[in-house]
Amino acid sequence: MTSSAMRDLMAITERPEVISLAGGLPDTSTFPPELFAKVTAQMAAKVTAKALQYAPTEGMAATKDVIAEVMAAEGTEGIDPDDVLVTTGGQQVIDLVCKTLVDPGDIVIAEAPTYPGAVPSFSAYQADVVQIDMDEDGMKIDLLEETLDRLEAEGRRPKFIYTIPNFHNPGGVTMSLPRRQRLVSIARERELLVLEDNPYGLLRYEGEALPTLRSLDGGDFVIYLGTFSKILAPGLRIGWAVAPRPVLQKMNVGKQGADLNSSSMTQLFAAEYFSIPGQWRAYLDSLCELYRGRRDVMLEALAEHFPPEATWSTPHGGLFLWVTLPDYIDTTDLLARALQENVAFVPGRAAFLDGRGGSSMRLNFSMVGDADIREGVRRIGEVIREQVDFYGTLTGSHRTVAPQAEPAPAEVDPVLADVLHLPPRRADEQDTGRGSA
Amino acid sequence: MTSSAMRDLMAITERPEVISLAGGLPDTSTFPPELFAKVTAQMAAKVTAKALQYAPTEGMAATKDVIAEVMAAEGTEGIDPDDVLVTTGGQQVIDLVCKTLVDPGDIVIAEAPTYPGAVPSFSAYQADVVQIDMDEDGMKIDLLEETLDRLEAEGRRPKFIYTIPNFHNPGGVTMSLPRRQRLVSIARERELLVLEDNPYGLLRYEGEALPTLRSLDGGDFVIYLGTFSKILAPGLRIGWAVAPRPVLQKMNVGKQGADLNSSSMTQLFAAEYFSIPGQWRAYLDSLCELYRGRRDVMLEALAEHFPPEATWSTPHGGLFLWVTLPDYIDTTDLLARALQENVAFVPGRAAFLDGRGGSSMRLNFSMVGDADIREGVRRIGEVIREQVDFYGTLTGSHRTVAPQAEPAPAEVDPVLADVLHLPPRRADEQDTGRGSA
Repeated sequence: MTSSAMRDLMAITERPEVISLAGGLPDTSTFPPELFAKVTAQMAAKVTAKALQYAPTEGMAATKDVIAEVMAAEGTEGIDPDDVLVTTGGQQVIDLVCKTLVDPGDIVIAEAPTYPGAVPSFSAYQADVVQIDMDEDGMKIDLLEETLDRLEAEGRRPKFIYTIPNFHNPGGVTMSLPRRQRLVSIARERELLVLEDNPYGLLRYEGEALPTLRSLDGGDFVIYLGTFSKILAPGLRIGWAVAPRPVLQKMNVGKQGADLNSSSMTQLFAAEYFSIPGQWRAYLDSLCELYRGRRDVMLEALAEHFPPEATWSTPHGGLFLWVTLPDYIDTTDLLARALQENVAFVPGRAAFLDGRGGSSMRLNFSMVGDADIREGVRRIGEVIREQVDFYGTLTGSHRTVAPQAEPAPAEVDPVLADVLHLPPRRADEQDTGRGSA
Repeated sequence: MTSSAMRDLMAITERPEVISLAGGLPDTSTFPPELFAKVTAQMAAKVTAKALQYAPTEGMAATKDVIAEVMAAEGTEGIDPDDVLVTTGGQQVIDLVCKTLVDPGDIVIAEAPTYPGAVPSFSAYQADVVQIDMDEDGMKIDLLEETLDRLEAEGRRPKFIYTIPNFHNPGGVTMSLPRRQRLVSIARERELLVLEDNPYGLLRYEGEALPTLRSLDGGDFVIYLGTFSKILAPGLRIGWAVAPRPVLQKMNVGKQGADLNSSSMTQLFAAEYFSIPGQWRAYLDSLCELYRGRRDVMLEALAEHFPPEATWSTPHGGLFLWVTLPDYIDTTDLLARALQENVAFVPGRAAFLDGRGGSSMRLNFSMVGDADIREGVRRIGEVIREQVDFYGTLTGSHRTVAPQAEPAPAEVDPVLADVLHLPPRRADEQDTGRGSA
């Protein structure tokens, strides 16, 4: 097992002086304490003993009804609550799907980049993860087919295809409708399971919603992962899976052994909250407005402070931007330097299992106020410029006004190296690496 | 993976007409709704945003402080909160310990019987479980040493020894002080890890508390499992592990992949609840008084309604009694018959991985009122008497007053057979089996 870069990095960046664009957190300070008090007071009056008791492993009926309602809003109508397994956050769905389907050495297909939090789950079950490149329309389905053909020729069959079609974490892109249709067709033709991870589907800031893979497929080959974490609160740790019955039953057994059931208290909190007429839609609208503004501020700041060599996604929803820098810049090294300037991001390598992503980074815009977004991006832009200038000095191709004093290549902090799955490298090794790049 | 007998059985026994002595539930109806309202109102005023947000994987500081306080009350003073991992119920500790330590085929030592809920966890990780018999002083340490010697001679080394020293689930017995001391010595001499599962330690109804294995060991070889489930509420899904650092770090990584962190909302509920002066001790005292009374009612009812061939443990605390019937009675068959009489228990086989336990049953006394305990035990006693009489008719040794009409041997319901990990048996096969027993 490897450690989760993202979670450990969060701990490092909890220092108050650090502007963290590294997290994946919704802004829960927007949730009114009076509303929290109202929901829990209703629970106290109606369901105290149930909220404190064990619950069925598959989840409580009231919570499953709410889940069916949310899934309809996400674009999948008519879900049967019996097809739902309530889980301890969306993360547990990934864990249980791996636990149920993956034996060591089995192939899992994922996007390149993929959700950094899935990396330790895939690793824990010793999956052999094959990552398929994306463009602005999401996973390249041509590449997927080529890969499946190649694997088939080798006699290897993936256990499932893991995808985040909406507002990809960390890629920031959304899979187009034609690609969704093709992916579902491929799954059907080849009888392959797809795990559709859709935490952000309702956090859309522009454009029209696209159908879920689950709705296109009808539930034969698509396992759906949903969660209340981004539309209500991650502190509930309530997510869910909707899966074909035989898979769902095995996941249920896996969940029994894992934690018996998810918290009754937080399941009933969700049920009570969603029962308040008009409430959840209004809160969701307020989140979309807030995050849309922050996304725009980040896009402006990137245009102002990042060098012209940098490119980034323009997400239509979700929480993240994906930035790619010139390939002579290593964002893992850059992070060490950025932390010295009290700013953090997730280096791209955390989103790959194959060592790629070294020149990319994930930036979060949901949790940070406008001023901090601007200042954080400015600071990162500054350390990037240092590297660009340094590279220019070495190669004679630098293009900025005045050569600066050569910055000392950052030593990778051993703790950080561990966080990022990397051996600590000495400054002189980095130097050599740079010079010959 | 096999299914968890206990959890599935709970679902079957949720029918309102069934008196279930099968559960392992504390009586959460004893928790005042006004107290729930008070605790959550304080949370709303102080920590709404935190309660709704992600938390560190290892757990929240306020919750860990409370855990250190509870562990001191349980007999382990001076725990460093940095040695604590907050988990999604005690069940997750078992899962994470297996995930961290067990490769397929590895040996785990457990008691005979062992916690039925651990069975699917051990099975999921394909542990080879060796079960050591108990008597009224808990695990027979002589047998343990013999087993360890035998395994060592075979070149096999257990990954850990799993034990429930206090008020064993399902055995109802408590490990004596000399055996605790010997177990800790053995662990130290042989450098073996021990997983001490202590959910019921504070639910003592008579006698003096004994030191925990963790306190005797000092933390070198003992992994401690604690939980709020039985002293506060299982609906929180908050348990914890205290483990040697290298093990704890690996469990932390495993937890990241499993569910990122346990619910912030329920962690803070616990922290807030335990901060009310005098509250948790007073509630615990009330639980002990209630459960002591129910235990006594069950002991009286057993003496009145069960045949003289039956024996049972007299637990000094906890939630369970373990009853052993004459070996010609199969409690799995008996359960099918008992459910026809609207009463349920956990058949002993669910507490073994090796097919033993066929003549035993676990009875719970914490969740059922006095009248239902009496009536439930009476009904079970009646179906046992049928079997005893039937056996007597077959063998000519029956000792009851008048021979009754021979009852039809119960067919095992297919659903139930699945629950109990058994192939459905036809009545004629049972018949033959009985006749030749």
